[in-house]
Amino acid sequence: MRLAPYLFQRLFDLGAAHAFGIPGDVILPLYEALEESPIRPILTTHEPSAGFAADAYARLKGIGVAVGTYGAGALNMVNPAAQAYAEKSPVVVISGAPDIADRNPDLLIHHKVRTFDTQLRIYEQATVASAALEDPATAYREINRVIETVRHEKRPGYLEIPRDMVWAEIAETAARPHFAPRRDAGALVEAMQDITARVNRSRNPVILAGVEIMRLGLRDQLIRLAECYNLPVATSFMGKAVFPEHHPNFIGTYMGAAGHPYSRLVVEGSDCLLMLGAWLTDTETGLFTSAIPRGTLIQVLANEVTVSRHRYDQVGLVEVMDALLERAEIKPREFRNEYVPERTEPQDRSLISAVFLELSRLDDRRYVFTVDVGDCLFGSVELNAENILNPGYYASMGFGVPAALGAGLAAPDRRPVALVGDGGFQMTGMELGTLVRYGVDAVVVVLNNGGYRSLEALGAARKICDIYPWDYVAVARAIRVTGVRVRTAEEFGFALQKACDRQGVSLIEVVLDPGDMSPTLRRLSRRTPS
Amino acid sequence: MRLAPYLFQRLFDLGAAHAFGIPGDVILPLYEALEESPIRPILTTHEPSAGFAADAYARLKGIGVAVGTYGAGALNMVNPAAQAYAEKSPVVVISGAPDIADRNPDLLIHHKVRTFDTQLRIYEQATVASAALEDPATAYREINRVIETVRHEKRPGYLEIPRDMVWAEIAETAARPHFAPRRDAGALVEAMQDITARVNRSRNPVILAGVEIMRLGLRDQLIRLAECYNLPVATSFMGKAVFPEHHPNFIGTYMGAAGHPYSRLVVEGSDCLLMLGAWLTDTETGLFTSAIPRGTLIQVLANEVTVSRHRYDQVGLVEVMDALLERAEIKPREFRNEYVPERTEPQDRSLISAVFLELSRLDDRRYVFTVDVGDCLFGSVELNAENILNPGYYASMGFGVPAALGAGLAAPDRRPVALVGDGGFQMTGMELGTLVRYGVDAVVVVLNNGGYRSLEALGAARKICDIYPWDYVAVARAIRVTGVRVRTAEEFGFALQKACDRQGVSLIEVVLDPGDMSPTLRRLSRRTPS
Repeated sequence: MRLAPYLFQRLFDLGAAHAFGIPGDVILPLYEALEESPIRPILTTHEPSAGFAADAYARLKGIGVAVGTYGAGALNMVNPAAQAYAEKSPVVVISGAPDIADRNPDLLIHHKVRTFDTQLRIYEQATVASAALEDPATAYREINRVIETVRHEKRPGYLEIPRDMVWAEIAETAARPHFAPRRDAGALVEAMQDITARVNRSRNPVILAGVEIMRLGLRDQLIRLAECYNLPVATSFMGKAVFPEHHPNFIGTYMGAAGHPYSRLVVEGSDCLLMLGAWLTDTETGLFTSAIPRGTLIQVLANEVTVSRHRYDQVGLVEVMDALLERAEIKPREFRNEYVPERTEPQDRSLISAVFLELSRLDDRRYVFTVDVGDCLFGSVELNAENILNPGYYASMGFGVPAALGAGLAAPDRRPVALVGDGGFQMTGMELGTLVRYGVDAVVVVLNNGGYRSLEALGAARKICDIYPWDYVAVARAIRVTGVRVRTAEEFGFALQKACDRQGVSLIEVVLDPGDMSPTLRRLSRRTPS
Repeated sequence: MRLAPYLFQRLFDLGAAHAFGIPGDVILPLYEALEESPIRPILTTHEPSAGFAADAYARLKGIGVAVGTYGAGALNMVNPAAQAYAEKSPVVVISGAPDIADRNPDLLIHHKVRTFDTQLRIYEQATVASAALEDPATAYREINRVIETVRHEKRPGYLEIPRDMVWAEIAETAARPHFAPRRDAGALVEAMQDITARVNRSRNPVILAGVEIMRLGLRDQLIRLAECYNLPVATSFMGKAVFPEHHPNFIGTYMGAAGHPYSRLVVEGSDCLLMLGAWLTDTETGLFTSAIPRGTLIQVLANEVTVSRHRYDQVGLVEVMDALLERAEIKPREFRNEYVPERTEPQDRSLISAVFLELSRLDDRRYVFTVDVGDCLFGSVELNAENILNPGYYASMGFGVPAALGAGLAAPDRRPVALVGDGGFQMTGMELGTLVRYGVDAVVVVLNNGGYRSLEALGAARKICDIYPWDYVAVARAIRVTGVRVRTAEEFGFALQKACDRQGVSLIEVVLDPGDMSPTLRRLSRRTPS
């Protein structure tokens, strides 16, 4: 059994059929091993994109792989790794390293920063597990420790493989570590009694569902739960799409003062808020404008339950959902849903809202949306769809187009639709060419408002928000991508239809008035003192 | 005295008239302070480019500034910071951070990775000094400690400014720390006796000059030294341009087996090699193919002298050059220079060599070359010019175009010429638009051989070296940059002349045969087993 072939086979068995990255001289042997493995190497133009693509892939498949050369490669993926950490995406970053045999501290090996382990030290900060595989005797154990920790914690890990270790003979030295989530059956019983009593005692219980529902594959259970007890369901910002928006129990996306007013009314008016897999981040709460008394809260996360001011550590979302559905004696409720989706009327309709309305008409089962930062992110609150990947917490610009690459390869039965602002497109949008190269027929929608307009809405001076204007359609055509520019809702609807009807990658540039804002951003901007 | 205004004024006083970066919500107050300061903010499309631009700027002005938002911004500049560390470039990376008042560990603030200090911990690994300015009482001291360490060690530093500290009142709490290089007059005397005796005893002393000559501004002294004792001078790979190539004492660029055969003959045949500011890196030595007996070596670096197998710690390049010129009793030599520049003959002339020959004809005093990684880097060994910035040691692709931005703003009397491969251009070449935006009339030469061909020359399979082809000329035109495609030496000469005669940014795409290689790369590829 040899090191790199074993590693790649293991990752493939766990669901990684693609690995995103760029070759370099120090990792040529590693790329040889990758080429011989069942994993297909996908080459992006720049490493930050490789990291984002692996992140999107991981969100859909439970594991994503990014490969970068020592120094210049891997250190260009620190930011995507940090995002994967913050947003709980199980990405394995693999880097090469110089031959161990060459490591005289006096030698200046290229790509080396300070010492040979600088890169490992950096990745230790942004991952849940990391290892430099320098010893064949421990490599098997280390590989599995890192991979299993990544899968268990749903956060990134880092493996560094010196050039002369790629083909090293390794042995199955120990049983593969297995990280079963720590559970306490008694704590589950106690927590369920606690939860059941509180829900039953409450006047108007409400569910607030978050992104962990999707990550743990609990969407169907959530629907059953809502129907079983007839509870209203709001979703969080990052949790958009974890509950069907046309469902009679859906009451909107909650974002404090920035979210839908009705969802705010119901959520903040509840005397028992059952938060399922939802995080309390600043964006999730409309920059901390939410007013939820702690005593009304039941927060159930992957591995932890907090009720009011006390916490159960060894209880998790999967078992609580199960128990709520199968064993809990909760009484069904009456509730009249007065939620009206925020689709503004034709006369005052902004183009950005119209774009999201058109996008919401696409057949849900055939598309996956990847959303970049800016008003495409805030505006996506209005998007009615089942599969949405967004960096709603860490909020790194440039995610949209590379994520479409990752999502398209992870879910070949769905067509990716990337929603990206002009600022985000200028960062990583040139991966359009990579989409063509690997036959990922994405539709890329560039919401061009001529700059970092959400930043301006949050108080920035116009001067530092303007960006150099590109002709996005001409840029697309220069790399053999069909492009079209639209200025009205009707033109957009027509262009979207056409892009969806044809094969191949399409770009639609939507020219927005710089003052055109989604309702969410408009509300957020009112909250910001500047 | 307020924190950010003081910091920016101090950096401006030290030579930083520009700061490269991208705004973000967490650093809006910092950008306000920057706008009010004498420093001009320069906005790139993507943070990695901002880091490279600051690096190039620092190499020319002795200080460079990069500004990035918390998380997504600053963590996207780890790689350029690492390059600045490895190649000794004094860059100050400045990041914002969330308000200290908001730092409840339970709160999930966007852009946050693991804990509030994750980013600081990461930058500690890639800088010589770092600080989070969280206390007005120590801010003055910390700012100056970081800046002075950066200036003294010529390596990057990191400063993090929480949002609510930007305008904090700070006081001049202590004398500004001053890092005088540690010197020992006795050690200098002893080292000079040692050096003088060895040089005088030797049959054929040779100077090998490196990049620190340029960084410390010692070019004129080097020329005087060579003329004074009539010594042959080779330059190292990164040190290209530290000695005039038309000088009668110039014997070529030394790179072990990969360099000019004559320079190798003379350097390796010397019984006393005086290395002035040159590093022994793997690229400098043609992947360690150099054969220089340690006993013949005198290596003089910025703060250290090594003679044969013993070292003087408190002696540096500036004083040794001075002493060699003013006080040393060294006997002048006879030496017949048989160096013939490696300009291949018309009949077997490769297009890439012809390109460098044409570029060498430009008036040295009016241009600064910024070189990317790949055969543009190896080929630049043939470039006869005075100002060349290259990442010849750390070798991060994507340096060329952003470096032209930094160099153009740092040295407005020189026009930047960026030399970049198609792979490097796909990473960061879209900063073309940024060049236009800020009126930096660079000439960008894209050496398009259709992929990562130097990697292929070093043994990689063709399959993983091919990249998705762009129409670089059309891409340039799509962002209002004049572009032209050339296929012959004559066409290139004509296009270069035209680009230099006109104002504005120009792109010249040189279509190369994938097998066309510079002599240096050809020799390197022969040395590579795989």
